[in-house]
Amino acid sequence: MKRLHNFCAGPATLPLPVLQKAKDELTNYRGKGASILEMSHRSPEYSAIHRQAVQRLKQLTGAGDEWDVLFLQGGASSQFMMVPHNFLNGSRTADYIDTGRWSDNAIKEAGLFGNVHVPFSSKESNYSRVPAEGDLSYSRAPQYVHFTSNNTIYGTQFASEPDAPAPLVCDASSDFLSRPLDLDRYGLIYAGAQKNLGPAGVTVVMIKKSFADTQRSETIPTILDYKTHQARIFNTPPVFAVYMVNYVLEWIEERGGLEYFRDINARKAARLYSELDRDDFYRGTVHKDSRSRMNVTFRLRDKRLEPEFLDRAEEHGLLALKGHRSVGGVRASLYNACEMESVEALVEFMQQFRAKHG
Amino acid sequence: MKRLHNFCAGPATLPLPVLQKAKDELTNYRGKGASILEMSHRSPEYSAIHRQAVQRLKQLTGAGDEWDVLFLQGGASSQFMMVPHNFLNGSRTADYIDTGRWSDNAIKEAGLFGNVHVPFSSKESNYSRVPAEGDLSYSRAPQYVHFTSNNTIYGTQFASEPDAPAPLVCDASSDFLSRPLDLDRYGLIYAGAQKNLGPAGVTVVMIKKSFADTQRSETIPTILDYKTHQARIFNTPPVFAVYMVNYVLEWIEERGGLEYFRDINARKAARLYSELDRDDFYRGTVHKDSRSRMNVTFRLRDKRLEPEFLDRAEEHGLLALKGHRSVGGVRASLYNACEMESVEALVEFMQQFRAKHG
Repeated sequence: MKRLHNFCAGPATLPLPVLQKAKDELTNYRGKGASILEMSHRSPEYSAIHRQAVQRLKQLTGAGDEWDVLFLQGGASSQFMMVPHNFLNGSRTADYIDTGRWSDNAIKEAGLFGNVHVPFSSKESNYSRVPAEGDLSYSRAPQYVHFTSNNTIYGTQFASEPDAPAPLVCDASSDFLSRPLDLDRYGLIYAGAQKNLGPAGVTVVMIKKSFADTQRSETIPTILDYKTHQARIFNTPPVFAVYMVNYVLEWIEERGGLEYFRDINARKAARLYSELDRDDFYRGTVHKDSRSRMNVTFRLRDKRLEPEFLDRAEEHGLLALKGHRSVGGVRASLYNACEMESVEALVEFMQQFRAKHG
Repeated sequence: MKRLHNFCAGPATLPLPVLQKAKDELTNYRGKGASILEMSHRSPEYSAIHRQAVQRLKQLTGAGDEWDVLFLQGGASSQFMMVPHNFLNGSRTADYIDTGRWSDNAIKEAGLFGNVHVPFSSKESNYSRVPAEGDLSYSRAPQYVHFTSNNTIYGTQFASEPDAPAPLVCDASSDFLSRPLDLDRYGLIYAGAQKNLGPAGVTVVMIKKSFADTQRSETIPTILDYKTHQARIFNTPPVFAVYMVNYVLEWIEERGGLEYFRDINARKAARLYSELDRDDFYRGTVHKDSRSRMNVTFRLRDKRLEPEFLDRAEEHGLLALKGHRSVGGVRASLYNACEMESVEALVEFMQQFRAKHG
C-alpha cells in the first residue's frame, strides 16, 4: 500500500519515520509489556517522554528557564478564551490584529473578559493580507498584542513578528516550528499540534514566567488557570499525542532544527509560487508580500475548471488540495513534513493540467 | 515481546485486538494513502468514524434521539467546571454527593458558579463508602444532582444510581460502559476515556437535550458551551482517540454489550474480593457494600510487606498494582479490557505470597 502526497491543511501529514516508530511500539512499548497508551501518565516511561518533549521544544526554540512549556488540550479554540480569561479582567485592554477567521474568533472570546482594540484588520479585503509596517494603530497601553502568525484559510503569513508596544501573544498553530522565533518579543505562544507538530489532540503553550505573573483573574476555574499547569501535570495529558510530538521534535532536530526548516520551507513555497506566477492560468489569492509558506492558496483563471483540477489531482495521488469550505479554490499545505518531492509532484501535475486546458 | 497483566488505574489496558487494528492501519488507513492521523477531521473517512462512534455509544447505552453524544477534550477535570458554568448562574443550587477526591474537585469548581449543597460526604472516614439509602439529605430544589459513580482512588462504587429529586449529572470516568445505565435518571454523563473506553485525550459527554435546554449562562465562552458542540463538530477533535474509542466500542458490542460486561466484571471482582476475605493477611480498605468492581483496593495486614508485594508482583508480570500516591497500599484495576486470566494470575500470585509470608 502506497502513501500518497498529502497536502491536508490539518490534521496534516506526519513524518513517515515517526509513524513507523509509533507503529512498531503500539502494542508493546520498548519491551515493557504494555502500549504507551496503557501506562499511567505518572509512570516513569511517560514522565520521561513528557520531560523530553518539553526539553526538545525549549532547545529547538531557544527558550531558557524563563519559559514554561505546557501540553494542554482543547486546541487553539480553547486558548482563544483561556488567554483573556487569565490576562484581561474587565478593565484591561488587549490589542488583537485581525487577519482572518481565527483572529476574529479570538477577538470574540476576548470581548467576554475585557476591552479589545483592533489595531489592524484586513477583513474588508477578505483577509488578503497581513499588516505592513505602519499599518498598525495600537491602543495606549495594551496588556498584550495578539496575532495569528499564519492564516491557514486565506494563505497569508507574517514574514516576521509585528512591532508591538506589549508582549506578543501568538496563535502559531499553523506555522509553529516552521522557522525560528524571536522569543524575546513574546509573552505566550500557543499552537494546536495538528499542522507542524503532531496529531490532533494536544495544544502546545509556551508561556514566559514574567508574563504569567501578570495574571489577575481571581475566580478562574482551576483547569483554565495557566498557573495550574505551570506548577505540575495537573490532569491526565493526551498521552499518545504528546508521545508523537516528542518523536516529531526528534525528527526536527535530526533534520537540522528550525533554520533547516525555514530554508526548506522557503524553497518549497518558492517552487510553487513561481509556478503560479508563470502566467495567469493559476492565480494566487493574496498580496504577494503576505504570502504564506505554509498554505499556498490559489484559484484557476477559469474557476469552472477547479472541480476537474481537484479530481485529476487526486487521481495523480495528490490528496486534500481543496480550499477551505469558506473560500473555495485550491490550497496546498506545505508544512514541515510535506517533502519537496510532494511539491515537485504537484508542480508537475499543474504543468500538465495547464498544458491540457490552458 | 510478551504483553503483561496490566492493572493500571488509567490510562488503562486496552483490548489487544483494538491495538492490533490501530497498528495495522497506522501508516496507511485502509489503503487511502495516509494515516487516519493525517486526514482532515472533515474528511469522509474521519466523519464516518466519528458518526459510527456516536451511533455505537447510543446503541450500547440505549440512548434515543433525546440524547446528544459529544467527544470533547480536557478530561473530567474540564467537565468539573463546564457543568456548573452551563447550568448554575449565581442564584441556582446544585447538589454534589462527596465520595472522594474527584467529587471534591468538582464541588470546588461548582462553587465558582453557584450554590453547592452537599447531601452526603464520606470525607471523614477517608471516603471508605458511598451513601446507603436514607443517607442523602438533598436541598429543596437542586438544578441537578452530581455524583461520581466509581471512585478510583478509594475503591468504592455506587451499586446503582442514587435516588435524586433532579436530573443526575455523573462523572462516570472510571466505570462508564462497565454495566448498563438507567439513562432516564440522567441529564448528563461524562467520562474521560482512559479507563474503560480508549486512550487518554478524549472525554465522552452524553447530554439529554431537555437538560441542555436548562442552560442559562449568557456570557459563557463559545467552546465551554455545550450547545456549541451539540450543534456540530466545532473544532478539531482528538482524531486518534476517537478512532480508538470507535474500535473499543465495536469490541464491546462483539463481546456482548453492557450486560456481558456487567456479568464478567462482577465475576472478576468477586474472584479477587473472595481472595481478600479468605483471612486477614489481605484487608480490603472500604465498606463491603461500597466495594468497587473496577478498582479493588487493599492493604496487607503487615504493611511493611507491601513494597515487597509490589516488587514481586512486577517480577511475576503483574503491572501497576501500586495504590494511588495519596492512599498507598495496593490497587488492582479491573476495567473491561482486563481479562479474567489477569485476575487469575493476580490471585495465584497473592496465594503464593501469602503462603510464603503468612
